[in-house]
Amino acid sequence: MDPRDRVAPEDSTRKFLRALFNAALAAADPYKAIAPALPATVPGRTVVVGAGKASAAMARAFEQLWPGKLEGLVVTRRGHAVPCERIEIVEASHPVPDAAGQESARRILDLARGLGPDDQLVFLVSGGGSALLALPAPGLTLEDKQAVTRALLRSGATIGEINTVRKHLSAIKGGRLAAAAALGKPRARVVTLAISDVPGDDPAVIASGPTVPDPSTFADARAVLAKYRIDEPEAVIAHLQAAEDETPKPGDPVFADARYTLIASPQQALAAAADAAQAAGVTPIVLSDRIEGEARDIGLMHAAIAVQLREGRLRVGARSVKLPAVLLSGGETTVTVRGPGRGGRNSEFLLSLAAALNGAPGIAAIACDTDGIDGTEDNAGAILLPDSIARAATRGVAIKTAMAENDAWGFFDALGDLVVTGPTLTNVNDFRAILVLP
Amino acid sequence: MDPRDRVAPEDSTRKFLRALFNAALAAADPYKAIAPALPATVPGRTVVVGAGKASAAMARAFEQLWPGKLEGLVVTRRGHAVPCERIEIVEASHPVPDAAGQESARRILDLARGLGPDDQLVFLVSGGGSALLALPAPGLTLEDKQAVTRALLRSGATIGEINTVRKHLSAIKGGRLAAAAALGKPRARVVTLAISDVPGDDPAVIASGPTVPDPSTFADARAVLAKYRIDEPEAVIAHLQAAEDETPKPGDPVFADARYTLIASPQQALAAAADAAQAAGVTPIVLSDRIEGEARDIGLMHAAIAVQLREGRLRVGARSVKLPAVLLSGGETTVTVRGPGRGGRNSEFLLSLAAALNGAPGIAAIACDTDGIDGTEDNAGAILLPDSIARAATRGVAIKTAMAENDAWGFFDALGDLVVTGPTLTNVNDFRAILVLP
Repeated sequence: MDPRDRVAPEDSTRKFLRALFNAALAAADPYKAIAPALPATVPGRTVVVGAGKASAAMARAFEQLWPGKLEGLVVTRRGHAVPCERIEIVEASHPVPDAAGQESARRILDLARGLGPDDQLVFLVSGGGSALLALPAPGLTLEDKQAVTRALLRSGATIGEINTVRKHLSAIKGGRLAAAAALGKPRARVVTLAISDVPGDDPAVIASGPTVPDPSTFADARAVLAKYRIDEPEAVIAHLQAAEDETPKPGDPVFADARYTLIASPQQALAAAADAAQAAGVTPIVLSDRIEGEARDIGLMHAAIAVQLREGRLRVGARSVKLPAVLLSGGETTVTVRGPGRGGRNSEFLLSLAAALNGAPGIAAIACDTDGIDGTEDNAGAILLPDSIARAATRGVAIKTAMAENDAWGFFDALGDLVVTGPTLTNVNDFRAILVLP
Repeated sequence: MDPRDRVAPEDSTRKFLRALFNAALAAADPYKAIAPALPATVPGRTVVVGAGKASAAMARAFEQLWPGKLEGLVVTRRGHAVPCERIEIVEASHPVPDAAGQESARRILDLARGLGPDDQLVFLVSGGGSALLALPAPGLTLEDKQAVTRALLRSGATIGEINTVRKHLSAIKGGRLAAAAALGKPRARVVTLAISDVPGDDPAVIASGPTVPDPSTFADARAVLAKYRIDEPEAVIAHLQAAEDETPKPGDPVFADARYTLIASPQQALAAAADAAQAAGVTPIVLSDRIEGEARDIGLMHAAIAVQLREGRLRVGARSVKLPAVLLSGGETTVTVRGPGRGGRNSEFLLSLAAALNGAPGIAAIACDTDGIDGTEDNAGAILLPDSIARAATRGVAIKTAMAENDAWGFFDALGDLVVTGPTLTNVNDFRAILVLP
């Protein structure tokens, strides 16, 4: 038997942290989230389209809940498909777009253009939809978009910045899908059901907002590339300079019959975890649902707050927060990769937290991507315990080396403390919980 | 009359934020802090020595409070001297050591070595003491130490890391001053009164701990240089490799008659600001006294928490924190300089906060160095208001340019929102307050 499988005294801590994560995931479950938000039926066709890591699961839930006829096409990330009976599910590549996503986007746009006055378009959108629904604007190739997406991902740009660029290189994003559905007279109804994975839940940012107004401009997109000193491919630069066919802005009549409902969000997931903690007698502190920034620095600040809490000095009003307590936060950090190691932003965050806490007693944490995949590995995230650094050292893994090589995955894998869920079929972005015991 | 001098509607917000900062400064006032911590008199000599930005003010307070005879020598930063009658005050350079600091350190060490059994050494230490009390170990020059200090400051190393290196290049730090005072038989008493400016208030870190045990080793110092890829000057590398004359460690008899008292700290300063807020009907939230990390990322996370608070969603236990409220934090951020502009870490933090909040209503902030000097400029820090970005734009200052050029000083100077106090004669590190109105 592998020693890491033995029952350890820390197992109740691990279980509690996993339970908080599970509570967050349950709050973002597509079936539970769609049921109360189901649109009314229409005399004509109901065409269901969608894109995102959660969108196949949303399509299945919609099929099961919908009382009438429907048809449709939804694109999801490879490994995130679920069997549907009436809606076609296509798997495509994420985070770098591929031909399957491109073909799906073209067909979705055609479905929208074919709608008449009595029809409705139901758009099931979730995080990841931006990369999955890639359809280059005329004159651009998928390779052009791939190149600039890769450069942006490498540069440490925020997801908002990446999407500002993508919307202006796309034939479907930034409200253009709604515009396609508005060709009939009177125009078809557009119902968007969204699971948010973006800080602040801005509808224009989730999957780059194919059915909502786009306040960003060609000039904004150019500014993002300038900020990160990206000056190729040439066709992309030329397209952004030409600035033809701007995205539809707020107030545009194409949105007159469009309705948008946020059915699950990071905030709701954090609230569910907070409720679960409270029910277990642990005081929840919900810091924020939208923390951005370099994962390591965000780890340092979480460590500083956790130590303050542990010392009984996290004061709110006249009193300090009582222990046990748990710090909860969400959002999307970034990682500037410097080493050759493996790992995503949540395990990188946790590695930095570990180094800063340096074995401080009474503090344990979980950090996971709610889509089940932290970066490019097969884990959702990891769990940190007070003895993690010491245990890793006994297995020949030094935290300093893991930090220097960006090998958070290797560090937590050596401990047997990766959290592996497989694709969760939903996505409300990062989930972090830091438990502080008396 | 300069338009920026007119009374603006935001003036009550500015005044409130300044009042919180003043409350923090008052809690760190040397006179108030030393009075309750005065040591007992001894039959022999009382020799007062010290180093730090607050140490001249501490020396004056000590003189005024001390009932018996005394003599001594204290070194402080240029511009931080105050007139003393019996203790000699020397001004030296900070953060890069100079010959004046070196000569003072040598004389302080000689004073300690000359103490007999009936004497006591009173060491008045505060932040900045590490650079001011520079005495190279045998075989090293001041230029060697200056070169490595500059390289570390540029590289973004933490103050703790910088001091680990400095202690192992020094003839006085890392407990060596206490060792010098312990040459008599029986040894002289050593009383340290400390104003902390370091995260966690570790006595071994404040001014690199001349009178306390040093848990760090030559190997740790080598690891810091390796981490930041610093491989010169050659004499420094050779000295760290030779690893001769290790600093005295915990349990060493040289500390048997040494007493250490923390008389002011970041935590106490934050608590005083929290009390002032509470008295004004504003709920204080003390996040942490020891936040480290890149100023921009720390700004992003503070922005995310402030927005959560503003939305009424910063939940603690079953309820959300009521507005108005104020987020308080301390510590010491770092800035990786990329542009040619001016500004210290507190104004850089505030610039990042401004960009992230992007004019969000109801949120205003102050960030200052409690020593009165934020980096290399003449300001302690600055104040941010919801309209700061818009007002700067009307004066031809774009926040994007200020960010790209690391010109936080120029941005807030254009607004007339620099906070200028001059040297405060104390130092409990960074002070940040973010006011969130309903």
